[in-house]
Amino acid sequence: MLETNPSHTVDAVLGALDQALGNGDIDQVMRLFCEDCYWRDLVTFTWNISTAEGHGQVRAMLDTQLGHVAPGSWRQDDAEMAMHDAGITSGWFHFETAVARGYGHIRLRDGKIWTLLTTMEELKGHEEPRGFRRPRGADHGSDPARKTWKERREAELADLGRTEQPYIVIIGGGQGGIALGARLRQLGVPTIIIEKNERAGDSWRKRYKSLCLHDPVWYDHLPYLPFPENWPVFAPKDKIGDWLEMYTKVMELNYWSSTTCTSARWDEAAKAWTIVVERDGHEIELNPKHLVLATGVSGKANVPAFEGREIFKGQQQHSSEHAGPDGWRGKKVVVVGSNNSAHDICAALWEGGADVTMLQRSSTMIVRSDTFMEIGLKDLYSEQAVASGMTTAKADLIFASLPYRLLHEFQTPVYDKIREVDADFYGQLESVGFMLDFGEDDSGLLMKYLRRGSGYYIDVGASDLIIQGKIKLVSGVGVQRLTERTVVLDDGRELEADLIVYATGYESMTGWAAELISHEVADKVGRCWGLGSATTKDPGPWEGELRNMWKPTRQEGLWFHGGNLHQSRHYSKYLALQLKARMEGVPSPVYGMPPVHHRS
Amino acid sequence: MLETNPSHTVDAVLGALDQALGNGDIDQVMRLFCEDCYWRDLVTFTWNISTAEGHGQVRAMLDTQLGHVAPGSWRQDDAEMAMHDAGITSGWFHFETAVARGYGHIRLRDGKIWTLLTTMEELKGHEEPRGFRRPRGADHGSDPARKTWKERREAELADLGRTEQPYIVIIGGGQGGIALGARLRQLGVPTIIIEKNERAGDSWRKRYKSLCLHDPVWYDHLPYLPFPENWPVFAPKDKIGDWLEMYTKVMELNYWSSTTCTSARWDEAAKAWTIVVERDGHEIELNPKHLVLATGVSGKANVPAFEGREIFKGQQQHSSEHAGPDGWRGKKVVVVGSNNSAHDICAALWEGGADVTMLQRSSTMIVRSDTFMEIGLKDLYSEQAVASGMTTAKADLIFASLPYRLLHEFQTPVYDKIREVDADFYGQLESVGFMLDFGEDDSGLLMKYLRRGSGYYIDVGASDLIIQGKIKLVSGVGVQRLTERTVVLDDGRELEADLIVYATGYESMTGWAAELISHEVADKVGRCWGLGSATTKDPGPWEGELRNMWKPTRQEGLWFHGGNLHQSRHYSKYLALQLKARMEGVPSPVYGMPPVHHRS
Repeated sequence: MLETNPSHTVDAVLGALDQALGNGDIDQVMRLFCEDCYWRDLVTFTWNISTAEGHGQVRAMLDTQLGHVAPGSWRQDDAEMAMHDAGITSGWFHFETAVARGYGHIRLRDGKIWTLLTTMEELKGHEEPRGFRRPRGADHGSDPARKTWKERREAELADLGRTEQPYIVIIGGGQGGIALGARLRQLGVPTIIIEKNERAGDSWRKRYKSLCLHDPVWYDHLPYLPFPENWPVFAPKDKIGDWLEMYTKVMELNYWSSTTCTSARWDEAAKAWTIVVERDGHEIELNPKHLVLATGVSGKANVPAFEGREIFKGQQQHSSEHAGPDGWRGKKVVVVGSNNSAHDICAALWEGGADVTMLQRSSTMIVRSDTFMEIGLKDLYSEQAVASGMTTAKADLIFASLPYRLLHEFQTPVYDKIREVDADFYGQLESVGFMLDFGEDDSGLLMKYLRRGSGYYIDVGASDLIIQGKIKLVSGVGVQRLTERTVVLDDGRELEADLIVYATGYESMTGWAAELISHEVADKVGRCWGLGSATTKDPGPWEGELRNMWKPTRQEGLWFHGGNLHQSRHYSKYLALQLKARMEGVPSPVYGMPPVHHRS
Repeated sequence: MLETNPSHTVDAVLGALDQALGNGDIDQVMRLFCEDCYWRDLVTFTWNISTAEGHGQVRAMLDTQLGHVAPGSWRQDDAEMAMHDAGITSGWFHFETAVARGYGHIRLRDGKIWTLLTTMEELKGHEEPRGFRRPRGADHGSDPARKTWKERREAELADLGRTEQPYIVIIGGGQGGIALGARLRQLGVPTIIIEKNERAGDSWRKRYKSLCLHDPVWYDHLPYLPFPENWPVFAPKDKIGDWLEMYTKVMELNYWSSTTCTSARWDEAAKAWTIVVERDGHEIELNPKHLVLATGVSGKANVPAFEGREIFKGQQQHSSEHAGPDGWRGKKVVVVGSNNSAHDICAALWEGGADVTMLQRSSTMIVRSDTFMEIGLKDLYSEQAVASGMTTAKADLIFASLPYRLLHEFQTPVYDKIREVDADFYGQLESVGFMLDFGEDDSGLLMKYLRRGSGYYIDVGASDLIIQGKIKLVSGVGVQRLTERTVVLDDGRELEADLIVYATGYESMTGWAAELISHEVADKVGRCWGLGSATTKDPGPWEGELRNMWKPTRQEGLWFHGGNLHQSRHYSKYLALQLKARMEGVPSPVYGMPPVHHRS
């Protein structure tokens, strides 16, 4: 169908949608949608992060929610151009509900809605004080009772958590907790962030010394304060640490460092939490209405319990404890694992003069960093994208507009191209025995990340060392046991070792729920992360969204926040709005709380 | 003349200019200019900050410089719209010289050049690493000699100033030194900033507690890292202090706090400075090639030496030492002075319950903050400006494109309007005896600031307290002497006082040159600031630019940086480029070094 004016087409569909929804005529609404449609909603319709797939699910959602939501004022965003490409017409729009202003994206196929993204921008009456609404700062006029900003801030830091209870406690002061904390502060929600380390940013500083971000800068901005244009593409860990530290300060976060949470109990009568933290040698009880666990997808170390661990005479470290190659020159190091941390650590050890062996038990998805940036990310998150007018907000929304169910279809051609472009590289890796995969359905890195949070390496140099044999590779076997001085493999071979590094990843965040709250609550809530794709480490059934992330869970008052810097930035917005709504008593009827299929 | 297409007109003139300059035909060039033309150049043509006024001066500049500069590639910036308004056609353009890329602004009247602004954007071959050139961060590949960012930074902090000499030392770690330091770092010029206070930002923190910025946020951004959109309009001093502190860290400045400079001598043989600083109880000698004094237009306190100072039994403080009203409730305070600090301090004292009298000896220019923002700044520096697409860079350049000679003509109607809009307010002030002025030629606050750096107050509430008699006003007299408990005025009246606050301003930065270097050098360099307008505190002859600011001085290797946040931001760029050029040996023949008319 020849599309002469995508803008008019989008206008027409939005107008029809507006009318049908306004009439409450769900049949009329459904006639606007393809059979194989997707409606992804971030809060506005469902008070959830959810994707309705197909007519049945969309209809069911509207049957329940439409009356509450009272959507209206659907209109194209005239600051954006509607597009038509490969049979798909797409555009951007504003809309409203009874309590919020929204923004969204629409894709049409043959004039009908194929994908619809509706997101909450702000709550009416609770808009963030920025731009035209930014605070004045100096209170003009005269006021004998005036307190300076410094006095007010000091009073807040003294009182909050002592004489005044926060509405929210966030456990975990890494980029997730920090991004969410910044959003909540702008929304005026009293929040305390609990961080075990001494300084904001330490969760990065304390990692192995060669660590740099693996995602490029345009992907990584925090809310409100993007990295400047002279920030490196891949920030070294200490630079990120310093940025996070200053961010907590200038964003005026109530950040309790050197503070550990020892327990959290839900008080059903009070509808609040009883949280005990240790700070400066004292126990402090906090009673927020909501608890957010932002302990990190790379938070709780997973260490395999190999037979012989206690008798091994060398050192053993999880990757999160490994400081770097200093002191290991000339020594024998075995690194168990073959994903990101394993590669980084092996490369640094080789550079530091160690004799290093990588032990690869199962296959790893490898993509070269430059190729990944060029082919995988360039359209949305790159200098070129910025130069062509792409903003972080828009990139995030384009990303969010692709339903998870379809995402692998978009990704597979990307990785087909990557395999082609780097065919020699992959061939060389395989020729030395490295076990490669491209995701179970060849859908690549992003899908692996979303499905299981692991199983890949963005190559910044280690793969060449493996190809050249500088990092020794033993693949296709696992560890049977340890002896005093060796690692014994399943096939009987022995590797001498002075140091064993377990680059064996991390546990689900629900592990923290079990530890801090209780096993019952953890079981009630179920596993975090994954899509239910029925692939390795991500059993079905299909969830359609990341389990438990940024949305209501089966435990009242308990939420999970986290992910990579992009997700921490983008989804902190929707989680903060959900929490603000609850604080303000804005009606927020949740639709589509998924059943718990997996406990952990 | 009907202007049908300003863009074509600008194109035509730029084309003719390009050709004439390219031919080296200065007669042909001059035919393109109005008789009463102005050519303001920031570095590209003159290696100076200078304005040539009229044919004679423009011709003289070109006679000397044109051969060196080799300008070319003059072309309109097609990302900007040429405009025509009130008989003036204006536009923006790119150009190049032998060694640099430039950007500029042009105004035409009857087809001829009325004002021309040429500015240096970057030095060819020494472009800043940002945007497409931003540093990679992670050194991909493998490198056994690899040092992490943290290791390199720690080495730099340990070595610079000890085993390696900086190219530049900046004395003064306030916003001026910090902004310049950031630019120099991006240009790869090894620099140390010397700051006497313990923490970056202390120059703000240590001021009176109610202090907030008087300029609104859009005017105040630092280079590279603008304040976020939720930053207050008028930032409280401690928030600014915190921002400056984090800025020095994330911008990777070599910032030596708790360090005092005791002396600086120019070594003519070595063409370098011998600077002695005290740090951690040790004396350290530094030998940079260039010394920048960024000690602040509000740096060196001016305290009048009244007779009886030694016998007065109460407290005496310069405004820079005054912490605020705490402890003065019920006490009598006399504030000597009637400009910004005096008003802020009086208002805070009244709020704190003190019995406060302002002693006004000479007239003050008052403008209400809201009126100032609405009428004075809105087009360039406001939320509305941002919303209409104005950027800080563009606003700075528009501001820079107005020759100082003409500026008061643009400003006078602005202040006429302000007087009209706030006529009642001004009437009330005068009715209680306040001595008002609007600048000697009614050209208002900006001109007063540029001419003398003082003599005004941006009203944020104190004027109403004066009108209401809550701040007592004694005007039109000066201080004769002090007694044990009183201030005796010229007319014989006596004011009882427990505290006297000298809100009597600051000395010229040349005072620092005299103190740290020598009187000879200070005299050789002459006064800083002022335009030579032949108005109070700004004697002629006409200079055309601020004396000694951001440009070569009569002392080789000595420079001055500073001004308000806008000037610190904008002019740090041109000063940094001049210094980088010298470091790289880029030929930089200075034109138009003005004679020294006033010693201090």
